[in-house]
Order: sequence, then structure tokens, then C-alpha cells
Amino acid sequence: MTATRIMLDENEIPTHWYNVVADMPNAPLPPLGPDGKPVGPEQMMVIFPETILAQEMSAERWIPIPDEVREAYRLWRPTPLIRALRLEKALGTPAKIYYKYEGVSPTGSHKPNSAIPQAYFNKIAGIKRLTTETGAGQWGSSLAFAGQMFGIEVRIYMVKISYDQKPFRRSMMQTWGAEVFASPSDMTNTGRAILAKDPDNQGSLGIAISEAVEEAASRADTKYALGSVLNHVLLHQTVIGLEAKKQLEKIGEYPDMVFAPCGGGSNFAGIAFPFFADKAAGKKVRLVAVEPTSCPTLTRGVYAYDYGDASGFTPLMKMYTLGHDFMPPGIHAGGLRYHGDSPLVSQLLHEGLIEAVAVPQLATFEAGVKFACAEGIIPAPESNHAIRACIDEALACRETGEPKTLLFNLSGHGHFDMASYDRYFAGKLEDYEYPRDAIETSLAHLPKVG
Amino acid sequence: MTATRIMLDENEIPTHWYNVVADMPNAPLPPLGPDGKPVGPEQMMVIFPETILAQEMSAERWIPIPDEVREAYRLWRPTPLIRALRLEKALGTPAKIYYKYEGVSPTGSHKPNSAIPQAYFNKIAGIKRLTTETGAGQWGSSLAFAGQMFGIEVRIYMVKISYDQKPFRRSMMQTWGAEVFASPSDMTNTGRAILAKDPDNQGSLGIAISEAVEEAASRADTKYALGSVLNHVLLHQTVIGLEAKKQLEKIGEYPDMVFAPCGGGSNFAGIAFPFFADKAAGKKVRLVAVEPTSCPTLTRGVYAYDYGDASGFTPLMKMYTLGHDFMPPGIHAGGLRYHGDSPLVSQLLHEGLIEAVAVPQLATFEAGVKFACAEGIIPAPESNHAIRACIDEALACRETGEPKTLLFNLSGHGHFDMASYDRYFAGKLEDYEYPRDAIETSLAHLPKVG
Repeated sequence: MTATRIMLDENEIPTHWYNVVADMPNAPLPPLGPDGKPVGPEQMMVIFPETILAQEMSAERWIPIPDEVREAYRLWRPTPLIRALRLEKALGTPAKIYYKYEGVSPTGSHKPNSAIPQAYFNKIAGIKRLTTETGAGQWGSSLAFAGQMFGIEVRIYMVKISYDQKPFRRSMMQTWGAEVFASPSDMTNTGRAILAKDPDNQGSLGIAISEAVEEAASRADTKYALGSVLNHVLLHQTVIGLEAKKQLEKIGEYPDMVFAPCGGGSNFAGIAFPFFADKAAGKKVRLVAVEPTSCPTLTRGVYAYDYGDASGFTPLMKMYTLGHDFMPPGIHAGGLRYHGDSPLVSQLLHEGLIEAVAVPQLATFEAGVKFACAEGIIPAPESNHAIRACIDEALACRETGEPKTLLFNLSGHGHFDMASYDRYFAGKLEDYEYPRDAIETSLAHLPKVG
Repeated sequence: MTATRIMLDENEIPTHWYNVVADMPNAPLPPLGPDGKPVGPEQMMVIFPETILAQEMSAERWIPIPDEVREAYRLWRPTPLIRALRLEKALGTPAKIYYKYEGVSPTGSHKPNSAIPQAYFNKIAGIKRLTTETGAGQWGSSLAFAGQMFGIEVRIYMVKISYDQKPFRRSMMQTWGAEVFASPSDMTNTGRAILAKDPDNQGSLGIAISEAVEEAASRADTKYALGSVLNHVLLHQTVIGLEAKKQLEKIGEYPDMVFAPCGGGSNFAGIAFPFFADKAAGKKVRLVAVEPTSCPTLTRGVYAYDYGDASGFTPLMKMYTLGHDFMPPGIHAGGLRYHGDSPLVSQLLHEGLIEAVAVPQLATFEAGVKFACAEGIIPAPESNHAIRACIDEALACRETGEPKTLLFNLSGHGHFDMASYDRYFAGKLEDYEYPRDAIETSLAHLPKVG
């Protein structure tokens, strides 16, 4: 019998996170302050606790996962690795397709992998309250869940377009006891300034980050938690790839290519970085970040120092960016509407060590429905990006006859996204043009440093 | 380390379903026709294929699961068994609480366990189309998924109140290619007659069954699939309990009590019947079916022959019933709004071999939120019934100091039910009075046979 569902025992949950910095050919460039000088820990400590900061700046290859975190992980981890036999058959491809399914978590996505340790490290640092932003709601619901697990209050600024499109993620956050505000909100100076100019502003991850950071910076008992982009978040997500490697090893497999959606970068890093360790050691493996054509940070952005948020509250990070005030179209993969990308992912791409492709919205939904009809699970719109790229590769294998082994991160289920599928079936979803003018305008606003 | 998450390998998916009939002290009473005589196979074959009928009438203890069915099960099975350590701690109970989590399936509930084999057996019998009814949508989405897996068309009559309250389950069915109609509909004589009298009729499982059966009976290439109540459906669901037993065995545990929600009976039978096998062999274990106080079939109904549907299309079954034209209040656990109950579950209860309790709506949501805040997963409203009863027992253990081992079926997640949680938080959910008058009226309409 062909192995199709490869499970691990709870004792096989990784004991350490993998830090890609240890294997990068060049050290990451530091974040800079508005004065163009590297930001020191004392400045970052306004919004992050010390343990998180130590992880953010570490070059150690392996960072231990505390027992309390592994214990919480056991509520849903290890997650299954599944061979997509039916999809392979439907495509008529000689390729072998595997997917790591993160949708079995309480929130239905991979986001709790970092929410849990962030809540834990803040808790033991004596912090009472966390603020954060959320796009599609995966991150916000995950931090709400994690806050409840460790008894810490959570306040969430949710991008307005998602707040309106996805009311049920909000209910979910409230079930776990969190407070949720549509962003831009009237809770912060940033939000009030934006609303004064544009009362119908649909929000963006950048704006929501500004609001959450502003609140955290203004209270001593409150810190900030970010759901992607930063090194420590990517670090926490590596449990995905570490488990997947172990699962593939059990059946004597190794991927030729690894695909994941890429918005802020933690989804991609989570599954791909542990394989980068092998690549750095000489093994041949291609790591492909998949983004929307309407928000093409990695494929059409510039590699430059820019703010992580819309209004310049955060330090400057060297990354691929479309400009911090770029406003992405309202696509249904809310988690991929971000102007920038993780500095680590950006640097690896800049150095030619990983790859990036952009795919249009309609093609991602077509891929998601094909996947659902073959494998059962209805994927989140973000995950559909990885599925699209993986299917395209599998179809190329059909032409060439190559039996490649392909792996992708099925980062979440689509049970909160059925309204988007409805619109797709009704012919109401559109493919946005490459937003050249908007990007040119926002790139003209890049800060002058770096 | 205390084992908290007990997994099985895909090779440990059961190879046979367990048929409780083999261990019942008395043979089940046969279904009767309108003439009061047992219904013969030739009459049932109008709506069911032969293999399904053979299972319906079998007294064999073990029925083999075809390889094709086990292969489809592997898309999400085996499901995890989880020790609710955090819930135990939150309750301060000496009881050990385990839950079997069926929400990891593509539809988020236990229903595909029977949808998959039903689609398969119809497919190999040459059937082109299946009709069915659905309440909350778990069954309809599961049959849509199963139909897509085996290339068979699916038409679904969805109880109107759920169709309106839960549009996203409908989108899900459509993603898997099924057609969905709000019931009562204008597609059938039954539906048209009801709408003529009461255009705002909210529907019920009974009415939807009538519509689906009527359509199947009128077309040669179309059969009917039922999501609960009948023997073969309960049979298929026993994979839940068979896996749970194996998982508990691995850690040297055995439950003192098993809890499951009970509407038509397949949820309860799925987890409880495999333990009944041990009980029949002399082992001490209590099996508790949990139903809503607003639709108290097992605790307040009568044990009598009655129709399975609202308009008398189906054979008469000996079961606990509130009367086939009883219209349950519009509670949010749509899957538990059924006037009758499985004949097998009913007979076991009547003979004192299992137990039943009824719980009010608000208390079930309170239990679900407590569970979510402890264990992460937000449960379906149906599952909240089992959780309520299990928590009550754990609290009783706190009083007595008894370290009982408790097991319940977490039959689905609540990701499609967040609107109901919203109403609960907003104080808009109500506890319905015991509907004595309505029940007295409908019981007066019981057929005179049997």
C-alpha cells in the first residue's frame, strides 16, 4: 500500500526551532532607525520582551522550544503530511505531490505556531496585554487563542475589508476572549489621522500594524506581537518544515521543490527554511515563494530599506517592498496583502538561493476547487497560491515525463472563506491588473536611508 | 510525560465496521409498511442499492470495509484522540477526560464516515445520482464531498432554517459540485403541498427526508442516502469508536462513561456501539446519549412505531418519537432537530442498556465556550451537548472525588457556527420551554399500527 498519510507521534514534535540565519552565506542586515543607524535592543524592548528580542537577533542554528510551548502545540500538532494521490491522478502527472496540512489547528491555519510561543514568552516576562494586527483574521484569531491558553489579554486591530468580509473570524477571537477593532480605528492617533482624510479607508496590514504598535509603545504592561515578517516569527513557524522533513524521511522521500504562499513570509519560511538547511549543505532542492500578481512584492518590488508599516512607526528593514504606502487591491487572500516581505526571505531571494513566482487570483481559486474535488479539503485562498504553482509544476512534469517530488504547505482550510468561493462561482471575482502606477507612486516615497 | 494526543497510523484504520445487532439481547423489530406488515427488500430497493440493504438487515458482527472506502477514509482518518488536560484543570476535577476529534475531516464533522461508503456502494451498483436531506449542513456537505470522490451526482434538500442561517455550508456543497435546494421546495409534491399551506414554513429534517425520498423513488437512476437513523449509517460510523478503543488501549485506559450528541443516532452510535460490544460481554461501561431539552425524543418521547419523515413516505420504524409531525423549535444545533431516533439506539435505551439525558441550549453553549477556552477547538453546537453532559459528570466527580475516565465525541468544529456563538454572546439565544402541547398534539397523530 502506498503511504498517503504520514503521521508523527506527539513525542516527535520538534524540540528546537531551526534558525536559518546560521546557514545564510551573509549575515542579515540590521534594522535601522530614522537616523539611519542600527536599532538597538533598548529601542525594540519598548514593544517586545527580551526573550523574543534575543530570538530576533540570534545566529544560533537551534533554539530550544520550552516544554510549556510543546505542551500547547500538542493540542493540534504534529499535523499530518498527506500524499495527494487523487490530485496526481486527476492531473495525469508523473510527479508525486505531498502537502503538509496545517488546517487542523483550533483556528484552522498555521498561525498558532508562532502565537503560542509569543504569548508564552510575554507571559513569563510579566506582560499583561498583547496588541496585534490581523488581515484575513488567521493571525488575530491565533493570538486570541494563544492569549487564552496562557492567560494574557489580547487586543486586535483587524484590517477593515477583512473585518467586513469575514465577521466569523471576529466572533472566533471573541470566543477566546479577545477585543477586536476594525482598522483604521479611532483608538489611535494613526487611525484617527487616516479616517480624517479618508473615512471609507478599507485598511491594510500596514495601517493595522501602525495602530497596534502605537498602543503597545504607549503602555508599560502592553507589548506587541507580529504574525509574520520578523525573524522570530519565521523561526517559530519552522516546526512545519521540521515535521514535514521527518515525515518524508519515514517513507524515504525528499522533495525536489517546496511551495508556499508568501505574504509576510512566515508561511513560506515555516515549511521551506528547514529544507534550506540541506540546500546550504549542498543538497539540491528548489524553494518557491508564491505571491499574488496584484501585490507582487518579491517579483516586482525593489530590494531596499523601508518601513514595515504604513505610517513609519517601525524601524526600517532591508526587504523587497512595493513602498510602505502602497495600497493593495482587495483580493480575497487577505493574508497576502502586504507591501513588504520578511527581511530573511528577501535576502535569500536577493542572493538567488530561493525563488518567487506571482499568480493571478482567478487561477488560484481554480486550483483550489480542483484540489478540493480531488483531495476533499477546501483550502484557504492564501493556500490556493501554493496549490496553483504546485499544480503548474505537476502539469509541466506531465509534459516532460519527470517524476518530481513536490511538497506544498496547505496552510489553512477555507471554511471561513466560503463567501469568496461563492463569488468565484458566481463569476464575480476579478483578476487585478499589475498595479504599475500605484507601485511607482509608493516607491517614490521610499525613505532615503540605507 | 502524560500522553495527551494519541494517534494511529493509517494502517490502523479499522478493516471492518462493528454491527451492534450481533450483540443485542433481542433482535431488532422490522420496519413495517402502511399495512402493518414487515417491509420486504424489494420495496426498500426502490430507494437503496442491494449492498446497503444487506448491511441494513445484517446480524453479522463484523462487516468488511472495502479497500476503496478505507483509501478515501485516509484523506482524514485516523482522527486524533486527545486528553483534555487543560479542561480537567479548569474544572478542578479528578476525572480524566478524553475526546475523539472528528472535526479534522474535509467537512469538519463525523458525517463523511457514512457518506463515503454510501457513495461508493451506490457507484458500484451503477447508480448515477443520490438525493438526500440535510439539517445543519454537515450531512449534505459530506455527501457532496463523497459524491465528488466517487463521481456520482448529488442533490440536496436543506432544511430552510439552516439554509438561511448557514449559507456557507451550501457554498461548500457547491464547491464539491452538488445541487442544493431549500426545503420545503417546489421540486416535489411534498414540498409544494407544504408551501401551499404555509409559505413561510422553516422546514425540518422530516420534511426534507420526504422530499429527497420522493425524488429518488421516482427515478430509476437515482437512489437516496440518509445521514443517520438507519442501521447501515450507524454501522459506518463505528469507525469512530473502534479507533477510540484502539487509542485508549495504547495507553492502558478504558472509559467509565461515553458521551455523544444524539439527534438521529449516528453520532452516538459511532462512538458508543463499539464499547457496547464490551458491555454485552460483561464489562462495566455507561453509554450516554445527549439530546436538547427542546427536542427530547429519548427522554420525553414514546417508544412506538412511527414514520421517519413528516409526511409518511418512509416505512414505520419502532423507535422513540415525538410524533412525525412534531416541529422542533429553531435551536442552533440543527443536526439534533429530529422527531424520532434510530431504532437501534431506541431499542437499547428501551431495554435499559444505554442512557439518555437532555440539556438546555444555553448550558450547551456555555460548555462549548469553556471547552474552547481550555482546549482551543471551538466545537459545533451539536458537540456542545456531549461536552455539557461530560462537564457535568466531571463536576460531580469533583464532589465525590471519583477519578472516572470520561470519553466524548467531539463530532465537529464550530467554524460554520460562529453566528450562533455571536448570538449567544449577545444574549440573544434562548432556552425553549419543554414543548409539551406541541408534543401532545403530534403524538395524537401516531399511526395505529404496531
